[in-house]
Amino acid sequence: MFSAELKSDTLKGIVNIISTLIDEVKFTITPEGMTLKAVDAAHVAMIEMEIEKCAFESYSAEDCEIGLDLDKVKGVLKLASAGDIIRMEQDDTHGRLVFKVGNITRRMNLVDTSTMSDPKVPQLSLTAKISLSVDELQKGIRAADTISDHITLRAGTGYFDLSCEGDTDSVSLRLEGDSVKVDTDAEVCSMFPLDYFSNITKAIPAGTQISVELDNDYPVKLVFALADGNARVNYLLAPRIESE
Amino acid sequence: MFSAELKSDTLKGIVNIISTLIDEVKFTITPEGMTLKAVDAAHVAMIEMEIEKCAFESYSAEDCEIGLDLDKVKGVLKLASAGDIIRMEQDDTHGRLVFKVGNITRRMNLVDTSTMSDPKVPQLSLTAKISLSVDELQKGIRAADTISDHITLRAGTGYFDLSCEGDTDSVSLRLEGDSVKVDTDAEVCSMFPLDYFSNITKAIPAGTQISVELDNDYPVKLVFALADGNARVNYLLAPRIESE
Amino acid sequence: MFSAELKSDTLKGIVNIISTLIDEVKFTITPEGMTLKAVDAAHVAMIEMEIEKCAFESYSAEDCEIGLDLDKVKGVLKLASAGDIIRMEQDDTHGRLVFKVGNITRRMNLVDTSTMSDPKVPQLSLTAKISLSVDELQKGIRAADTISDHITLRAGTGYFDLSCEGDTDSVSLRLEGDSVKVDTDAEVCSMFPLDYFSNITKAIPAGTQISVELDNDYPVKLVFALADGNARVNYLLAPRIESE
Repeated sequence: MFSAELKSDTLKGIVNIISTLIDEVKFTITPEGMTLKAVDAAHVAMIEMEIEKCAFESYSAEDCEIGLDLDKVKGVLKLASAGDIIRMEQDDTHGRLVFKVGNITRRMNLVDTSTMSDPKVPQLSLTAKISLSVDELQKGIRAADTISDHITLRAGTGYFDLSCEGDTDSVSLRLEGDSVKVDTDAEVCSMFPLDYFSNITKAIPAGTQISVELDNDYPVKLVFALADGNARVNYLLAPRIESE
Repeated sequence: MFSAELKSDTLKGIVNIISTLIDEVKFTITPEGMTLKAVDAAHVAMIEMEIEKCAFESYSAEDCEIGLDLDKVKGVLKLASAGDIIRMEQDDTHGRLVFKVGNITRRMNLVDTSTMSDPKVPQLSLTAKISLSVDELQKGIRAADTISDHITLRAGTGYFDLSCEGDTDSVSLRLEGDSVKVDTDAEVCSMFPLDYFSNITKAIPAGTQISVELDNDYPVKLVFALADGNARVNYLLAPRIESE
Repeated sequence: MFSAELKSDTLKGIVNIISTLIDEVKFTITPEGMTLKAVDAAHVAMIEMEIEKCAFESYSAEDCEIGLDLDKVKGVLKLASAGDIIRMEQDDTHGRLVFKVGNITRRMNLVDTSTMSDPKVPQLSLTAKISLSVDELQKGIRAADTISDHITLRAGTGYFDLSCEGDTDSVSLRLEGDSVKVDTDAEVCSMFPLDYFSNITKAIPAGTQISVELDNDYPVKLVFALADGNARVNYLLAPRIESE
């Protein structure tokens, strides 16, 4: 049994993040909220998300799993305006989730979750921790476009750099001073695939405060909240390690 | 002889409706106004339109027929702003219609109407009559997208439903209460091709009040006005009858 | 040595004009400003531009030449907002130009200018001189679309016409009265390729006052200013002369 109501903006924020990696998702549902773990087909990035009960306008659930096709959920979101409430209700008899937006009723077949396993999330202890607004990362992403397929993140005492090196051209964004808080006892640097980093960065709502955890040739971890702090996301992205 | 002036918005509204079905149209012109009857190539839908003299800012005509390429008229509309007056004048010598928008003069070859016959409009007496704003239909159309190629309209005492059934998913919009007025003595239901219904619904200006006449496995008739009530449109759409 | 700062709008205006003809450009730089001469690959049109030192916020240069890939410069412009200052600095060691926009540093390889010769600009003395806002030309261009590949410019005492003749259809824009000032002692008329005329007309900022110099079956010369009058542009377009 599962039924809940939430703001369309909240659902949209969640769906946008997940769909940077996968098309079909399994939510693990408990009386206290929902969680999900997802890894993309190429095993380059991983999302761990925890949505508390209080992210919803109303919430009532027993332990269960629900598999959803995110493209279909995006279709439902198009029917809602920014302030609208979306109601979801499980229809056990038909294996469907019923969405209600105003006077529209959308019955959606659930995706079979029996073959979807939970990815194992590695526990990482990373040297540098950088706090900044995602807007700064989005600016860096725009600058990186067309220079290279990779982006290098580098952090040291008091600064955080995003840079791209092409064969002849390069671009870099230096963040220091008030726009960034860097906590590290050494300079660290890793390189990442630009498309993954760009997709997740663009999917995070503008103005979101985000924590970037970085090390040398190690995955980067992005930690941020959605739904007024009631949903927490960890995003892990594998580095590209240059063979010398 | 034919010359007339009208607001670009009025001409745009008329052209948008007709061009959901056909590219070239024959207007029958009298001293009192213009009429047209048009059926699409597949004979699935039909438009009957009557534009009164007073839909125009100025109007002067003898009985005649004028054949127009609607894509070219759309080109003229792009040269006008919302409030602009468009002047049309027949140039008998060259078989052209001359459009004037501000200081632009556009001379347009007429389409030969000799091979364009008037479709016969069936006289239908349909059980249910539903009055509502076209905005509600447009909402239903957005919801129906991607579920199925067909849309089912159903009316009964006090309600009007639009619904789509796919193999696994479905969507429905229920209209009742203040948003709709239903006049029927029985429940009636017919299914229609979604693309035709969608095209005409999107072409009707937002906010237009519209009358939907419906029966069981019968064509639906949409009746509405354009040009501040000075142009009347009947749109007939054939049902899709499921073979059992 | 070359370093300068200018408003992103100013750089954008300059780049938009040049890139109607070529992708790579050679700027000739002096302590007093920059100049360029460019002709398109088909030798149909030519641009001569002079940018004074005072078009820049700051400017410091010795005599030199700089070759730039305009697509890359457009990429830099996307990183700047309308009011932003863009800083350019030559990096002689690496043959690069370094752009700075806020905290973004973009290092750009220079294009080799050794094989780029200066086109010879013909000295023309044309009969008619027409002064008008580029907005009027832009309106004429919109009307001309889809009628023909050529546009005819015609000027006589007190009027300036833009017209297009297709096989069956035609369109013309007549400018007279307050919207245009025509200085000529004879009627003159030439025909031009619509795509070139359209591209340059669309690239000139709306509201720009422009001088059109015209003669019979002769190139047309467009003269206008950018950067608050601190950059001057001559644009020459070869006529299309109909063989009889």
